[in-house]
Amino acid sequence: MPVVAVLGDGQLARMMQTEAIELGVDTRVLASSKDKSAAQVFGDVRIGDYTNLEDLRAIVEGADAVTFDHEHVPNEFAQLLIDDGVAVEPRPEALIYAQDKLEQRRRLAEAGLPVPPFAAITSAADAEAFWDETDGQVCLKATRGGYDGHGVWFPSSRSECAELVEDLLGRDLPLMTEKKVAFTRELSAMVARNRSGDVRAWPVVESRQDDGICRVAIAPAPNMSDELAKHCEDLAVRVAEGLGVTGVLAVELFEFEGPNGPEVAVNELAMRPHNTGHWTQDGCLTSQFEQHIRAVLDWPLGAVDTLAPATVMVNTLGGDEDPDTPMAERVVAVMRKYPQAKVHLYGKDHRPGRKMGHVNVCADTVEEALAIAEDAAHYIIHATWKD
Amino acid sequence: MPVVAVLGDGQLARMMQTEAIELGVDTRVLASSKDKSAAQVFGDVRIGDYTNLEDLRAIVEGADAVTFDHEHVPNEFAQLLIDDGVAVEPRPEALIYAQDKLEQRRRLAEAGLPVPPFAAITSAADAEAFWDETDGQVCLKATRGGYDGHGVWFPSSRSECAELVEDLLGRDLPLMTEKKVAFTRELSAMVARNRSGDVRAWPVVESRQDDGICRVAIAPAPNMSDELAKHCEDLAVRVAEGLGVTGVLAVELFEFEGPNGPEVAVNELAMRPHNTGHWTQDGCLTSQFEQHIRAVLDWPLGAVDTLAPATVMVNTLGGDEDPDTPMAERVVAVMRKYPQAKVHLYGKDHRPGRKMGHVNVCADTVEEALAIAEDAAHYIIHATWKD
Repeated sequence: MPVVAVLGDGQLARMMQTEAIELGVDTRVLASSKDKSAAQVFGDVRIGDYTNLEDLRAIVEGADAVTFDHEHVPNEFAQLLIDDGVAVEPRPEALIYAQDKLEQRRRLAEAGLPVPPFAAITSAADAEAFWDETDGQVCLKATRGGYDGHGVWFPSSRSECAELVEDLLGRDLPLMTEKKVAFTRELSAMVARNRSGDVRAWPVVESRQDDGICRVAIAPAPNMSDELAKHCEDLAVRVAEGLGVTGVLAVELFEFEGPNGPEVAVNELAMRPHNTGHWTQDGCLTSQFEQHIRAVLDWPLGAVDTLAPATVMVNTLGGDEDPDTPMAERVVAVMRKYPQAKVHLYGKDHRPGRKMGHVNVCADTVEEALAIAEDAAHYIIHATWKD
Repeated sequence: MPVVAVLGDGQLARMMQTEAIELGVDTRVLASSKDKSAAQVFGDVRIGDYTNLEDLRAIVEGADAVTFDHEHVPNEFAQLLIDDGVAVEPRPEALIYAQDKLEQRRRLAEAGLPVPPFAAITSAADAEAFWDETDGQVCLKATRGGYDGHGVWFPSSRSECAELVEDLLGRDLPLMTEKKVAFTRELSAMVARNRSGDVRAWPVVESRQDDGICRVAIAPAPNMSDELAKHCEDLAVRVAEGLGVTGVLAVELFEFEGPNGPEVAVNELAMRPHNTGHWTQDGCLTSQFEQHIRAVLDWPLGAVDTLAPATVMVNTLGGDEDPDTPMAERVVAVMRKYPQAKVHLYGKDHRPGRKMGHVNVCADTVEEALAIAEDAAHYIIHATWKD
């Protein structure tokens, strides 16, 4: 059976491991230390640094596929591994569009895909011009390195915008800007694509953010026409095919009111299993983690039928304080109150705002699933019920 | 979060690990070598011997619960660990009834539970008497150590029976006999019970054996009255409660035609996740492996709602020959033909008859699920389709 090497030691790698075990696929993980989320649960853990070429060369030796749980492995190193004959998936020529937001906007716009108006920013004057063009609807972004709301700014005046740009450019941060979208909600269209081009799309989900961090995913997205749902899925397939993505691709979307009803524009891309896809572990015949393993091995993809009318995922983000009640007792209380709740924990210590786990709930209605998942997650975070 | 130590390195321990990872429960496994099925996928593997008290003491140190993937840990050692304050589950006073078939028959009969007529055998004369009583419908069993059809004999004549008994007793094999049941099919009623007494019963399944080895499980058991299904579930709950079982309990049953319709009698007990419960991984909200972890930690048990009208599991037992087509290619062929098939592999090398994995298929009808699961398993075993 083949060997998959995973670069990165977070919860995404951890959840790939549970699926790899069942498939009988051998795995190894490159981790920065033994106590990291994924390192706790892999049989073969290599301690090393994903920005060190020698560490990368050591872990990929003999692996049938190499993949990531984040986008920060230097592309030039990934390319060197590929030149050595290693199957690194997704490849740098696709990954660059998840890493560099400006390149991504240019490429998607070229392909006729819906993106907000955008511009490269190399001076305060560029930013002022864009401010004038958009009547001050400016979202400033670091082209690289942003995540979970980091690397995004919404200046409130033309002068604040110009000063911010001077400051950020002075710190050598490459910048772009785009027009703020007056969105009505956020969606996520997820697909998987294998090396041979087989593609499967999960139902589009509604995602809810707090301070830029995903907190809730509702599958399938409620109150959405079949046409728009189909449009989002097709859009994600076009991105996957157009960019040559291998593995799981999340296309985060803004939904907004257009002149003729709801429309969507692309917000972000992620080329790996994604927080908005965790619901598939319990709500879908094939989870995003199993599908990712299959895709990077160029195996046929699994069916993505849903298992319930509604599935809701709520993240358990570390609260401002860690409750005195130990985590195990909180889990027990949730299991007692909600025998149908599926609790997933990542083996992480408490830190405010940290993604420490999630709860999935399947039910006949979104309302029921949401109420249970919210209450369960609330208890795991705070050791108190919601109401 | 708590630590569960698993004694035994087979596929049952391996599949407990996938669920423990998602629950955030820490695990360790006692394995005879690093290449064993479970040892491949645990982060914390202790190499040792489950019949060596020092090895047992070392692995249970600091564990919140200790459990098994087989019934062969010496009870006197388990008791010593319990005396040290370790939570060993299930406990020897329950486990004895899964280990010693004669003790089990006596206990179940005492409790008024349906078992075939049986007798202890300490001489050829005992066996001859039982032969006469039952008109030769004799099933001879080793009271301990039998599994998958080993340790069971069906002598074809009174003299053969007497000679066999002389021979076996001469080899110090403790024996019992029971009346052969003219069963119409075999069933399995599975429940989980936690230390506090919380019990959940999965739907009763039909199991099909080849040469005494489980090959197929069909859930829920087709063509069964609600009354009989309920009766089987209640019976399994009574066994779990009566014997004080903690964890998963499988009650294997014979179904036979009684004077007033179908009846059941207990065939075997297993106090751990069981082959006839593998379907729960994909067909149930809470799998037997998750439930076992929860039960031995004395956590509340999960809901056992089914996820499809029918789920079928077919084992991939090693064929007489290992096909030239590598396993990975066989898996790929199955995934291509059946995107809905869930393939589970145990990381084991080929050996004829060996349990190397299984395929679960959920569908709207038993016929459809069975046809797909049988064909998929056939390909994984033989590298040819069924028809």
